[in-house]
Amino acid sequence: MREIPGYEFGKVPDAPISDEEFELLKKSVMWTEEDEKYRKLACEVLKGQVEQILDLWYGWVGSNPHLVYYFGDRSGRPIPQYLEAVRKRFGQWILDTVCRSYDRQWLNYVYEIGLRHHRTKKGKTDGVETVEHIPLRYMVAFIAPIGLTIKPFLEKGGHPPDVVEKMWAAWIKSVVLQVAIWSHPYAKPGEW
Amino acid sequence: MREIPGYEFGKVPDAPISDEEFELLKKSVMWTEEDEKYRKLACEVLKGQVEQILDLWYGWVGSNPHLVYYFGDRSGRPIPQYLEAVRKRFGQWILDTVCRSYDRQWLNYVYEIGLRHHRTKKGKTDGVETVEHIPLRYMVAFIAPIGLTIKPFLEKGGHPPDVVEKMWAAWIKSVVLQVAIWSHPYAKPGEW
Ligand code: HEM
Ligand code: HEM
Repeated sequence: MREIPGYEFGKVPDAPISDEEFELLKKSVMWTEEDEKYRKLACEVLKGQVEQILDLWYGWVGSNPHLVYYFGDRSGRPIPQYLEAVRKRFGQWILDTVCRSYDRQWLNYVYEIGLRHHRTKKGKTDGVETVEHIPLRYMVAFIAPIGLTIKPFLEKGGHPPDVVEKMWAAWIKSVVLQVAIWSHPYAKPGEW
Repeated sequence: MREIPGYEFGKVPDAPISDEEFELLKKSVMWTEEDEKYRKLACEVLKGQVEQILDLWYGWVGSNPHLVYYFGDRSGRPIPQYLEAVRKRFGQWILDTVCRSYDRQWLNYVYEIGLRHHRTKKGKTDGVETVEHIPLRYMVAFIAPIGLTIKPFLEKGGHPPDVVEKMWAAWIKSVVLQVAIWSHPYAKPGEW
């Protein structure tokens, strides 16, 4: 795998989330051994489709001024090198979501991704002067597009409909799990 | 419809969310006319199944000590009359989600439901001495169980699989939309 600028998996500090909190959160999204199994199958299916998935998502964000705004500078102009740099890491995230094991290193990097959307670190990784912060409501809202639009790509693997549906459920649960983690820096003290 | 104690649809203050914010949030969950159409079909399908849906959800929450905890008093004992009172309003919420129009009154009551999970109002409606607050991470996490487990109930309407899937997508989008609204009181000032 060639190096992706700003992708720091394995190199970020520990997330302020305990193993027990993490386990209970997995239970709360109904994560089971079955999801573990089917997300690994999704890993095989999605591997060769990353660019097409990104085309779809970037196309949709690009067609929504109130969303592409967050990839822009403070006067509202999109920053092409920012969009490009994030795109590469976003592609890697798709793979990490379906192929990596959900251990402490994974949790730590998921947490880091949350900070990069929040005012704590937004724009810092790429050294860009961008809108400072992505609102919490949009972080939650994106569970729908990211969760739902993956289905046709899962179908391309040629597996029967019930298997596709199980991969899809695992995908949605994982996206929900990650957004729950990303909400941490946004919450008032003691409310996460 | 008989009166449901503590159900105050149409009687709560205005949510601190503008019409424009609400519209953009709907766009961000990819809400379309199609969802509007299929959620009304889901209204027909789910109407007679509310008790069975609640049995499933309450059964699942009941089997998870870290979740049923939030229906308890401060020493950890579940409060039966609290569970019962909330169950009635929860049933009404299922119907409101699929049958009511998403206007200002609906938005205001959705916002109120968020406050009732947050320390602002938790336990106040039923006058119970309960755990003060439900963490934001579980609010987000519940998108998975509430979003996914509705499928078999939608199937019971006897519609073809592609129609069931469209009703399901509308349901998931609406749950995501509502949790995005519920996250408002949890966010640090200016971060929602
Ligand atoms: C389910 C919700 C979301 C997912 C799965 C997601 C995924 C990602 C990923 C994987 C990255 C790169 C992380 C890395 O640096 O390794 C990223 C960065 C970014 N995303 Fe998101 N995202 C979500 C919500 C949003 C929303 C709502 C927006 C606003 C339009 C947004 C805009 C951005 C921006 C601007 C960056 C660059 C952040 C930086 O400065 O480092 N994302 N996102
Ligand atoms: C997708 C997420 C959730 C949905 C759709 C949901 C739905 C509802 C609804 C409709 C009500 C009644 C609202 C009313 O008073 O009219 C309610 C209340 C309640 N829910 Fe949730 N809920 C969610 C997350 C959670 C979580 C994570 C917990 C924790 C286990 C929880 C525990 C409670 C409790 C204790 C109440 C009573 C609050 C009060 O004191 O008024 N809910 N919920």
